[in-house]
Order: sequence, then C-alpha cells, then structure tokens
Amino acid sequence: MRELCISGGTILTMDQAGTVIPDGMLCIEDGRITYCGPRHAADAPPREGCEELDARGGLIMPGLINGHTHAAMTLLRGMADDLPLEKWLTEHIFPAETKLTGEAVYWGTMLACAEMIRNGVTSFCDMYLFERQTAKAADAAGLRAMVGEVIYDFPSPSYGELENGFAVTRELIAGYASHPRIKAAVMPHALYTCSPSLLERAGRLAGETGADLHIHLAETREETAQVVSRYGKRPLDHLESLGLLNRALVAAHAVDLTPDEVARLARAGARVAHCPESNMKLASGVAPLMTMLEAGVKVGLGTDGCASNNDLDLLGEMDSCAKLHKASALDPTAAPAETVAALATRLGGEAFGRLDLGILAEGMLADVIVIDIDQPHLTPMYNPYSHLVYAARGADVIHTVCHGKVLMADRKLKTMDLAEVMAKAREQAARLNGRAS
Amino acid sequence: MRELCISGGTILTMDQAGTVIPDGMLCIEDGRITYCGPRHAADAPPREGCEELDARGGLIMPGLINGHTHAAMTLLRGMADDLPLEKWLTEHIFPAETKLTGEAVYWGTMLACAEMIRNGVTSFCDMYLFERQTAKAADAAGLRAMVGEVIYDFPSPSYGELENGFAVTRELIAGYASHPRIKAAVMPHALYTCSPSLLERAGRLAGETGADLHIHLAETREETAQVVSRYGKRPLDHLESLGLLNRALVAAHAVDLTPDEVARLARAGARVAHCPESNMKLASGVAPLMTMLEAGVKVGLGTDGCASNNDLDLLGEMDSCAKLHKASALDPTAAPAETVAALATRLGGEAFGRLDLGILAEGMLADVIVIDIDQPHLTPMYNPYSHLVYAARGADVIHTVCHGKVLMADRKLKTMDLAEVMAKAREQAARLNGRAS
Repeated sequence: MRELCISGGTILTMDQAGTVIPDGMLCIEDGRITYCGPRHAADAPPREGCEELDARGGLIMPGLINGHTHAAMTLLRGMADDLPLEKWLTEHIFPAETKLTGEAVYWGTMLACAEMIRNGVTSFCDMYLFERQTAKAADAAGLRAMVGEVIYDFPSPSYGELENGFAVTRELIAGYASHPRIKAAVMPHALYTCSPSLLERAGRLAGETGADLHIHLAETREETAQVVSRYGKRPLDHLESLGLLNRALVAAHAVDLTPDEVARLARAGARVAHCPESNMKLASGVAPLMTMLEAGVKVGLGTDGCASNNDLDLLGEMDSCAKLHKASALDPTAAPAETVAALATRLGGEAFGRLDLGILAEGMLADVIVIDIDQPHLTPMYNPYSHLVYAARGADVIHTVCHGKVLMADRKLKTMDLAEVMAKAREQAARLNGRAS
Repeated sequence: MRELCISGGTILTMDQAGTVIPDGMLCIEDGRITYCGPRHAADAPPREGCEELDARGGLIMPGLINGHTHAAMTLLRGMADDLPLEKWLTEHIFPAETKLTGEAVYWGTMLACAEMIRNGVTSFCDMYLFERQTAKAADAAGLRAMVGEVIYDFPSPSYGELENGFAVTRELIAGYASHPRIKAAVMPHALYTCSPSLLERAGRLAGETGADLHIHLAETREETAQVVSRYGKRPLDHLESLGLLNRALVAAHAVDLTPDEVARLARAGARVAHCPESNMKLASGVAPLMTMLEAGVKVGLGTDGCASNNDLDLLGEMDSCAKLHKASALDPTAAPAETVAALATRLGGEAFGRLDLGILAEGMLADVIVIDIDQPHLTPMYNPYSHLVYAARGADVIHTVCHGKVLMADRKLKTMDLAEVMAKAREQAARLNGRAS
C-alpha cells in the first residue's frame, strides 16, 4: 500500500553524487521510499486514500540525524551556564539529576522530541538515566532512536547498583531488537567514570549482542591527563587495551586526538559523534573534524544535551560546525557546506549504524523533512547546501516524516499534545530545580 | 497622545542593574517610552484608541542593534562560500557588485529589512553602495539606521569618481540630519583600499559634520601585514597618524589588535562593531572581545553582510559570540550570556552612538521586541539571558516595534508587501548573477 506522497519541492537527495531533483516527488510505503524522482516521471499518480504532503516552495531532504544527545536534559536547559566545568557539574547538574525520576525523563524526552520534530531531526542517539522512559517517549513521538542507559562505577539515580545497569541494558537491547525505529546500545559513560572491568564487561556485552558501544571519549585535555595519570595511557590506548576499539565503537566528542589516533579510529571502523556547539560552550577544544573525514572515520553530528548547547537544532549545529572549523584552522575552505550537511544526513546515518538512512533514494528508510525556502532569509537561492548550513534554522522546517509517518505537517505536531508536554515538563523542572520554573 | 501599549510579558530592561519586570507594561508616546514597569502599577489604563500589543507568554526587550552590515548583500547570499578570501572577492562578489544599481540596492535592502524585522533587529549600521537607496528602504521599512556610502580610491559602481562619493556622503549627512530614525556617517572602506589623503579628508568631514566615521579595521592579519608593508605602521598606528583615532571612530571587526591597541581604542572613546560569525566564516581570526570590554571599549554586535554570515539573525549571532570566545579562550566562563546580550542592546546602543537606545526605561527610544517563550525549546525558563543567547532564534520574535511604530505583529510585517519584496529581490539577484535564481 502506498502510504504517503510528498511532492512539488526540490529534492536534495544527499547521496554521494549530490543529486538534486527539481519539482520532485517521493512515494513511501511501509516506512521505505518506493519512488524518488521527478514528479512528471512518476509511474502512477498517488492512489486514492494515499496521504499527501505539499512541498511546493520547499526543499525535501533526509530527516536530520542527531548523533549524540541526552534528550531529557531539556529540563535542565539554562539552569546554569558560563561556569567552570567542575562547578557546573557538581553544584548544578549532578544535584538536579539526583532528583530525576522515570516520569521526569519521560516528559523531558517528550519535550526534546517536540523540539527535534520541529527542527527536522528524525533520529537521535541518546545516553541518559531511566532510558526505558526515553525509549517509550521516542516511540510515542514516532522518532527513530538509539537508546542506552548510562552506566558508570557509582550507584545510579536510575537503576541503583551497577549490576542492574547491565540488566537494564540487556533488557533494552532484547526488548527493542525487532522494533522498526528504536534500538538500544551499550553506553558506558566515559573512561574517567568507568573502571577497566566495567568497560571490558560493556565491550563483551556489545560483542555478544551485536549492539553498538557508545561512550564519551577524549572530550577534553583534562580527560586525557586524568586517564594518563590513572592508567599510564592516553584515552584511545586505554580503550584499545580493553578491547573496545572496534566497529561497535561510537565515540562522542573525540576532541583530544592525535593524527595517529584518528588513523587508528578509522582503521578500526569506529564512528564518531562530533558535537561542536557543546565543545565550544564547555570550552572543551576543537575536534579534528577534517582530519577524521580525510582518514575515513564515519562522523555524525550531535547536539549533546540541552544543558551544554542549549538547543536541539541540527541546522544551527551545522552552521556552527562549518564556522568553527574555518575559524580554528584559519582557513575559509575548511568544513564546506556540502560536507557539513552530509554529517547530519548521509554520514550521520552511517555513524548511527544504518546504511539505509540519511539519503533519499528508493529502498531507503522514509525519514524525510521539508524546509520552507519561500522566506526572506532564504531568498534568493543560488545553492541549497549553502542555505541549509548558513541560513536555514529549525524553525524553517514545515513537515517532518519518520519511517513514513507524518510527525509534523505545516508546523503542527501530530503525535503529541504539545501543551500537555510543556505543562508536564514545567512541573518536572520545578521539582528538579527545587523552585518554580 | 499615548500611541502604543505593550503588556503582559516579562520585561527584560537590559539596564545596567539587570532589572527584570514580571507581568510588565510599556507605554509609548511619540517614539519614546513613557512608562516601563509592572502592569498593576501603571498610573492609568491604556486610553481609548491606543494601539495595544499583547505580550503574554513573552519576553519584552529592547530591539536588537546590528552594529555592522551591508544590507543589500542579501542579494548575494549563498552565491559563493567556502572559498579563499581573494578568490571569493575577485571572482564572485566584486563581479556581481559591478552590476549593482540603485534599484537592486533598494530591493536588496528591503529584503534585509524584512529579515531584520522578523529577527527583532530594529537598528542597523550599514556601509554599502547606492546608500541613498539603503536610507530610502530603511525609512520605508520603519527601521532605525546609520547609513554611509562606502568610499575608496577606485571608481565606485555607485557614484563613480571619489569626489562624488564625498558629495553623496555630505548630502546623506545633511539630508537626514533631523530625521527621527535615519542618520548618516562617513564610511571609508578600509586602510588597504583608501589612501592616506582620502582618510584624512574623511576624518575632516566627520569632524566638521559631527558624524561618525565607520571603517573596517584590523579585520585580518593579512590586512595588518599589508598596512605595515605599505605604510610602515600597524593599522591602528596608521589610523592615529591620520587623525582618525577619536570619539567619532566606529571600527568594524577589530580582530587583529594588541592589548595596547585595545587600551588606546578605549582611551580615544572609539567604538567597535564585533562580527564573530563573519570572522569565523571568512577565517579572519578572533577579536579580543573580553579584553575590549575590560578596557571599556563600547562594543556592539554586527552580522556583517549576508555574503559572509549568511544571515541577519542577531540572536544567533549572540550564541556564536558566546561560544566562540569560550572555545577560543578555552574558558567556559568567557563571554557570559548577560554580557553578550548587552552587546546587542545597551552596549550596542552606545556603539551605535545613542545613549537613549538599547534599554527599556522611561525616556528611552521605543524600539521594542517581544519574544514568544511559550515554545518547547524555551521551556522551562530558569534564566532569561541564557535562553536569549543560547536557545532563542530570530523566528521566536513575534512583535517588532521601532520608534513606537509596530513593524511586525504576530509575525506579520506591517510596513511592506513581503511577496513583492521577495519577487523584486529575486529579479535583481537573477540579473546580478547572470542567470535565473
């Protein structure tokens, strides 16, 4: 059954060849694209009863892929900024997180899903507490998600003792094994919060289950110093010695890496979630993006959590990404628009672990967004990649489709009651903050 | 006569004391604020016939001040990006600019005004060609502007020989002397495009007329090298030797400055327009923002033109500004939100040359915007400055008022026919680009 037809706009396929189809049409059945081409060349008109989305005056492109976030941290957005990292964490974020509950995470994630759908993000990779609730919220919102309960040496506000953390992880991986949109991964927090034995065990679990292993890695020079002082090895060496440098690895941040370490990441087939805005805001440093891409590392783009960004707008993240690397390299040709757009789509799909994601073509997953380019700040249009990266923002997305289902049409959310989500999130935030929000 | 009343939102006055007024009310007469305080304490209800703007669920704040732009370059946005500076200028921007006409600048500026009004920008400082048309467009759009015909050694596509450039400048300064919103300044392009005699003459003209002198200064290390090689002096020394380092000076960019040069800028009472996104995109370097602020330089925030940004969104610019300086200094406490918000308001007003601009208080100019904070990405709100800088974007502005006149209400533009402006801009862009846009 043909489920959905999107027609009339310019299709930016984001395939390797850079194919752009003016006045295009997309047909979708059972969550996959069955036709992607010029409207006039479609073999048949949309069948009766087929849902239609009008994309005239728009840019049709793959839904954006958020490679690393902590969705429920929407509840902590703006609670504390502009502070030294240690003070920010110990005096603000951690105390608030001790008050987290499954309910808070559910509503915080729903709020994040609302924001992501409005910003054209259709997939997100999430590491946080009470992740069963994250999965539930992502499922209810209709988004694609890779979820993982964060595990570390100390007792968790969510699962308590470490043993339970592994149990929750196993349960999530098994429970979502055949879900069309949700998958789970093994998510140890970081090298400085997880013992070698925890990490080895996490690595074995990923190996046994075929799940990804997602971890914060080489985020700052301070992390490197800490790992070196504790284990006598730099982060990547330590990780490798524990058997974790392999195809299952997704490294979030990957800032403090030498060119040799980048080459080894590439050879291992490991992936990276690059989070430029978080790295800027927390003053973590600048990840070697161009070196990673040249070495063939699969790099996706992540917003990180809302406490360190402070938004879930991947279009804005692309802009920051392109500009940061130019500024950092003092080279205006660094991180060109088309490359950066690929981080959030084609390359982001590979980093997310799916080769059928992030490109519009027959057979690919039907995660699609439409950007309204009939607006002053997107007029005239010489080059769609330029507008996408340097001028478009989340608010320009008008339709969002995930797995063939319309999650937003004409800026109206279809899978949730936004007023309810915002009210519940405010309630939870007031509780976490210990005062009215 | 009471003209306009804005009530119901939280007023972020942006005054030095950081006054925030919950459930506030603003009354406006003849372009100035006559009441700014709690709604319940207003001396009288709005008179009959008074225009009212509902700001419930919103943040009421001063209109944003764009300290440096080339508005009509909206027509060139996205025409060429990610190129080395020299190639970008000589192969793309300059050739397109030779085809500029007054009509193109008028419609390009109207397009920019549409975008700025939608982004909550109520004042802009503009340096470009055919600036009489810029002034006309800003006036028609209802915005506040400081305009200046760009002058340099070579013949201009606008006025032809230099002599005419000075004549246009004089005419603009005299013609707008008593205009409530438009003013003109003397705008020599830069030290590397203007001879010493041109600059001295420009300085004398500013001195005679009391106008500002706005110039691109110390934008890149290459500029410094060029000025040193030609005149044996660094840019600021060269400028000073020509008598231009004084209170009239507004330096756009001010990137490549030593701490001593910053101190001299401060002592001279000179002002700076800081353009972080342009500096990032063109890989110009990082301006010493915190050093300038500590030294007491009045710093405003500018977007620069759309060919090097590529937008006119000062809320986004604040975010980039706050993050760039953290990343550059490897210090998460650098460029905190409240300081950065002041650059686009209170400090930006001073940099713009008006002490009655950029703060909401009785007697101040009535340039006011309302930001809709009842949205998922701005929920919950712990700290308005944080949201303003790190999470709000131009699309969140719902009402824009300049000099007491409503330019946008509920996202609808009141002073122009947007469809006409976009159509005319597309026409002009197609001509400049030599192909359909």
